[in-house]
Amino acid sequence: MPKTFTSVPGAVVAARGFRAAGVFCDIKRLGTGKGSNKGAKRDLALLVSEVPCSAAGMFTTNQICAAPVKVCVSRMAKGMAQAVVINSGNANACTGKQGMKDALAMTRLAEQALAISEGYALVGSTGRIGVLMPMENVTQGIQAAAIELGSTEAHAAQAAEAIMTSDSRSKSLAIEFKLGGKNVRLGGMCKGAGMIQPGMSANGARPAALPGIPPGLHATMLGFITTDAAIEARTLQMALREAVANSFNRITVDGDMSTNDTVLVLANGLAGNTPIKQLAKSELGRNYKAFQAALQHVCLELAKMIVRDGEGVHRVVTLRLSGARDTAEADAAVRSIANSALVKTSWHGGDPNWGRIIDALGYSSAYVEEAKVDIGYSTPGSRQVLWSLKRGQPTSATFAELCAAAAPSEFDLHVRLNLGKGSAVLYAADLTEAYVEYNKGDVGDPTTLGG
Amino acid sequence: MPKTFTSVPGAVVAARGFRAAGVFCDIKRLGTGKGSNKGAKRDLALLVSEVPCSAAGMFTTNQICAAPVKVCVSRMAKGMAQAVVINSGNANACTGKQGMKDALAMTRLAEQALAISEGYALVGSTGRIGVLMPMENVTQGIQAAAIELGSTEAHAAQAAEAIMTSDSRSKSLAIEFKLGGKNVRLGGMCKGAGMIQPGMSANGARPAALPGIPPGLHATMLGFITTDAAIEARTLQMALREAVANSFNRITVDGDMSTNDTVLVLANGLAGNTPIKQLAKSELGRNYKAFQAALQHVCLELAKMIVRDGEGVHRVVTLRLSGARDTAEADAAVRSIANSALVKTSWHGGDPNWGRIIDALGYSSAYVEEAKVDIGYSTPGSRQVLWSLKRGQPTSATFAELCAAAAPSEFDLHVRLNLGKGSAVLYAADLTEAYVEYNKGDVGDPTTLGG
Repeated sequence: MPKTFTSVPGAVVAARGFRAAGVFCDIKRLGTGKGSNKGAKRDLALLVSEVPCSAAGMFTTNQICAAPVKVCVSRMAKGMAQAVVINSGNANACTGKQGMKDALAMTRLAEQALAISEGYALVGSTGRIGVLMPMENVTQGIQAAAIELGSTEAHAAQAAEAIMTSDSRSKSLAIEFKLGGKNVRLGGMCKGAGMIQPGMSANGARPAALPGIPPGLHATMLGFITTDAAIEARTLQMALREAVANSFNRITVDGDMSTNDTVLVLANGLAGNTPIKQLAKSELGRNYKAFQAALQHVCLELAKMIVRDGEGVHRVVTLRLSGARDTAEADAAVRSIANSALVKTSWHGGDPNWGRIIDALGYSSAYVEEAKVDIGYSTPGSRQVLWSLKRGQPTSATFAELCAAAAPSEFDLHVRLNLGKGSAVLYAADLTEAYVEYNKGDVGDPTTLGG
Repeated sequence: MPKTFTSVPGAVVAARGFRAAGVFCDIKRLGTGKGSNKGAKRDLALLVSEVPCSAAGMFTTNQICAAPVKVCVSRMAKGMAQAVVINSGNANACTGKQGMKDALAMTRLAEQALAISEGYALVGSTGRIGVLMPMENVTQGIQAAAIELGSTEAHAAQAAEAIMTSDSRSKSLAIEFKLGGKNVRLGGMCKGAGMIQPGMSANGARPAALPGIPPGLHATMLGFITTDAAIEARTLQMALREAVANSFNRITVDGDMSTNDTVLVLANGLAGNTPIKQLAKSELGRNYKAFQAALQHVCLELAKMIVRDGEGVHRVVTLRLSGARDTAEADAAVRSIANSALVKTSWHGGDPNWGRIIDALGYSSAYVEEAKVDIGYSTPGSRQVLWSLKRGQPTSATFAELCAAAAPSEFDLHVRLNLGKGSAVLYAADLTEAYVEYNKGDVGDPTTLGG
């Protein structure tokens, strides 16, 4: 962690003025309880600030887009919010007009239970696609959560648990840093393990050429970030767009982009710093840069937690590609490698198979020249690279040396195309029998529907 | 099989004037024998016509392209050939200048052993990437095969076995049909099980917009077809291009396009029909259509054998999509579904999960509207569809009914986008633990390198 950030406890309630709760209300209708928490995993979370916040969001660019995403995109227009209600177990995707009514009803129920202004609650959902929300359970859950709200570490942990689906563990962190002489806190929680290759934009629309979001790419990943920094909504959106482009939009577990991917940030200003704002990008000052760096740090740490906890994942590989003709081609090249079934299974086997890697480069939409390609391995973040291929030719590195480099549970794979200045990083994962086993599901159990 | 085609024995030697052989020469240097066949799988095949043939070929569009592919592309210019030498165990890909020398040496060795004109032998390779060909073994193999040549079913079977890599069984067939009053035969053999999503073009160059070969798509599949039809080379190439666009380029096992994909056709004219030729497409007559239909039939049957024998494949799914805005979008949509890890694992589980299918549609580069999508199941080739989703809404079909429809080892998945007239068919497969198990390989065994 850079010296300017100090890790602090409390996750999404680390920042002043935020409270959270996570309860069980049986959204999957397991029949093990209602509105209570009799040992089953929590499935509904509430997150609320004591004062209205600047709000920003990034949303899936999947054309099949869930009702809660549509509601959030619409509410981003005013750049203000004060609470988020989040459920797991049901994605509220492909649920038509009733789905939209239910998503809106969830925000209204939260606003009423929390006594905040109408239109100030946001909503996030993850779970089964194509099933109507069990609104009776959800209503009881929201009311129970509103009573449970608090700002202890335990409250943050319950909220982080409530948003999990196939995650094996909850994911959260918080940091403290200086902003204009004030101590500012920024914390977050996220979920996601399968259907993970986010490509989010500010309004869910496909950008023509936003770096890091190539068209046609493919998690439900949900991320919720809170801060007591004072920052104008439009500036917050700019900071988040850049942070997501360098974090959540740089991960892939299985190459599938979800209908529900959402990252939301609430900034309530209680740290008392001079509000960060700007009219033009050129006016962005040191405080903006410090805030953006903190936000990006938290987003990247959360994003990496998702890859490490990806369904069935045994190995995490950070792809570092340089020398493409441009950034878009660099991105296409790393995604072609990261989503190749043959490359992913070789990673699972600890096999330093450069043949499959160069094959995946060759069929990507990026221009490559065999005689210019370098491929090598390093420990995470290290610049000491063991090259297996240089200028298209095997090096003198022995098979045993290369196997040792590909054996750790995390390593960096370096690829140089030696053509231009385009570069890209992608946090990727192996493909294991456990992934297949989990996702082939149990035909007797229709709850395996993803989203 | 259409009534006009009669199945005949003999595969690649069914047509008049062709001979074949398959021998073991230890190309992987297992050390179990040299130039002999002591129980190990054959690994070198020869195929030869008694007279020079019109020749046509289609080749991988992967930018990383093996030496034998480059040699064939170059020799296609004259449209004439008389023999093919094929090895398994080594792809001769990423082998630089020595690789090109070795590929050319293989053709020269074949030409000498067969006493045919220089430049009249073609070459195909499949196996490990990045390893130089063991030319001593190959030389012995070519000489041994030239002695073994014959035109019995056993000879064809030995050749078909020699080109296998991870294939569990050899793949071949032959048909007889009438052409201008003459009995014509057309037979073929192919191999391929993993690294399968061919996108071949006539010269290996990426077409801007050739139907069935979207840029950036992703087997070694090798196919060799022989016929005694008389057909001019340029017309043969036209017939093959169309046949491959509707067969080998319409399959995917794992979405990975190989460095070595090759389909070659040799037509020696010994059937004695009036040679098929044309100056413009408008001049194509009934005989061309009959020949093209026969060629396409054989290519499609061979292509389907590859999917059925795909690595670890338990279920084969024929995707039939219609109603896209255009053909390119239809193709993008079916490939997005067919290559989704979540869709493929649900097929493995026999799970009629339309949520994952519509999710994959949504992130494809094809335009889709949730409220217009239909998804359904039928038995192979049937028009009696059990719809699970109509106009974005679940139908009254029960989960048990849908599970029954997704249970057979082969079924058709119908998708209608209801937007336009673009349609596409893709022959796809599930993703199983066995695929992962096979491809994670054994790190102690570097022979798992694909290509």
